[in-house]
Amino acid sequence: MPLCYINGKYAPISECQLPVTDMAIQRGAAVFEAARIYDGRLFALDMHLERFAESARLAGIAADKIIPLLPDIIKTGVGMDGCPSDGLVRPYITGGDINDKGFFPEPRFFVLFGGINKTPEEERRRGATLVPNRMERPFPLCKSVNYLFALIPLGGGDKENHESLYMPGGEITEAMTNNFFLCKDGRIITAPTGRVLDGVTRNVVLTLARENGFTVEERCPREEELAVADEAFITGTVNEVLSVVRVGGLTIGSGRPGPVAAHLYRLFLSNMERWLS
Amino acid sequence: MPLCYINGKYAPISECQLPVTDMAIQRGAAVFEAARIYDGRLFALDMHLERFAESARLAGIAADKIIPLLPDIIKTGVGMDGCPSDGLVRPYITGGDINDKGFFPEPRFFVLFGGINKTPEEERRRGATLVPNRMERPFPLCKSVNYLFALIPLGGGDKENHESLYMPGGEITEAMTNNFFLCKDGRIITAPTGRVLDGVTRNVVLTLARENGFTVEERCPREEELAVADEAFITGTVNEVLSVVRVGGLTIGSGRPGPVAAHLYRLFLSNMERWLS
Repeated sequence: MPLCYINGKYAPISECQLPVTDMAIQRGAAVFEAARIYDGRLFALDMHLERFAESARLAGIAADKIIPLLPDIIKTGVGMDGCPSDGLVRPYITGGDINDKGFFPEPRFFVLFGGINKTPEEERRRGATLVPNRMERPFPLCKSVNYLFALIPLGGGDKENHESLYMPGGEITEAMTNNFFLCKDGRIITAPTGRVLDGVTRNVVLTLARENGFTVEERCPREEELAVADEAFITGTVNEVLSVVRVGGLTIGSGRPGPVAAHLYRLFLSNMERWLS
Repeated sequence: MPLCYINGKYAPISECQLPVTDMAIQRGAAVFEAARIYDGRLFALDMHLERFAESARLAGIAADKIIPLLPDIIKTGVGMDGCPSDGLVRPYITGGDINDKGFFPEPRFFVLFGGINKTPEEERRRGATLVPNRMERPFPLCKSVNYLFALIPLGGGDKENHESLYMPGGEITEAMTNNFFLCKDGRIITAPTGRVLDGVTRNVVLTLARENGFTVEERCPREEELAVADEAFITGTVNEVLSVVRVGGLTIGSGRPGPVAAHLYRLFLSNMERWLS
């Protein structure tokens, strides 16, 4: 049974509830993080908590008293029965019951400790398919729970679709829960932070790519570059590095996972120790 | 104490909670309605419930078994102790614990019966100020709880600001919780349904305007028309008809509530009986 920390104590997740008066439920006023647990150790927790504080600030949630409590709560929870040794820690800060014109002075928080739906091996071999979503992601530096608009384009359709890809006005920004990368003639092209979420795995992969001699261009790939790309991939906490072989009806490159993504994924796995605490 | 219907029974709202595993909390997967109670009677309930079903369908939430239960639950609740005779009924349908790639097969629902923060008389006399929000409202026909992006532009700033106004690319679509109307040379200009939420009060006011000889243009007003408009107003369940005298730094018309909004508000109040059940 997954575990939850809420209202000052750890409890089975089935006992953890939020009042319906909370602005998370009434107005989507909540921010969260998802950090990976590998073999009982946390991956890049500091980077996640730094981004979490920034998300809360952007959302107008007064989280200053909550953020400093989280390292101890998370580290203690990861060591408890009920927390899997390979899994995800997901802290949430909600708006609480008071919405003072976009300022939330009395937030609540809870932390989920649970398993992870790892990328299926079959999808990793085949490569992922993304579904175009023509809108701009609003306020991309604020990792809030407002994901419904990125889920509507999937609409319960083909279950082989991985997730949706934001493509406003012919530009490619990011996927619903992953950053997006295009490879062309030895260059790796990805949207700049600010236009997209400041992805923790994105930053790790870009560090490793630069250390290993790849040329990185931080700009939004254009939609028409998909058709002439050598390959594409996404990065994120759950999927790590995952090849993308289709976007909507369009096949990318050979239609199979490519060598750049495979090389970066090997580098990610072999350098993981540097970001584990 | 406001009342809530949840899990098959009526209870004080302080006892009503949602599991943290619900996709409403984790992914913003929830739709809702807000219908007015005037003197113990419901205003335009059928229009609200019809729109509610459409919101759930667009959100991928399987609400077919829930919607038919709501008229009885709502009418019974409105007659109970704890439900104010002037107030709001707010039914919510949430995604439940299962997110099957944007399809939510096992939703939850609850209904809130509570008071209303009526438009302050001072704001009605002075006219409202709206704050520009340069983004497009995603999927405007789906009345979901994903309001954070419309709250961020307020950011807890000047408490005299009423709410934000979506103004993507120089077009004016709608305010956060109200439809928007511009008046110029005897014409009333408002964005078409589909580009904006299918507002219940919008439809009532447009019906009354046409019956009373006003010329209505259904198109998005351009931002530059604000500076030369005679007046502006918003319509919604809570604010009914409310004059708008400022958008950001720009004063509209004389800077005071105008005669068209006043006339339509009188018509709204004097014709209310037609939509009460």
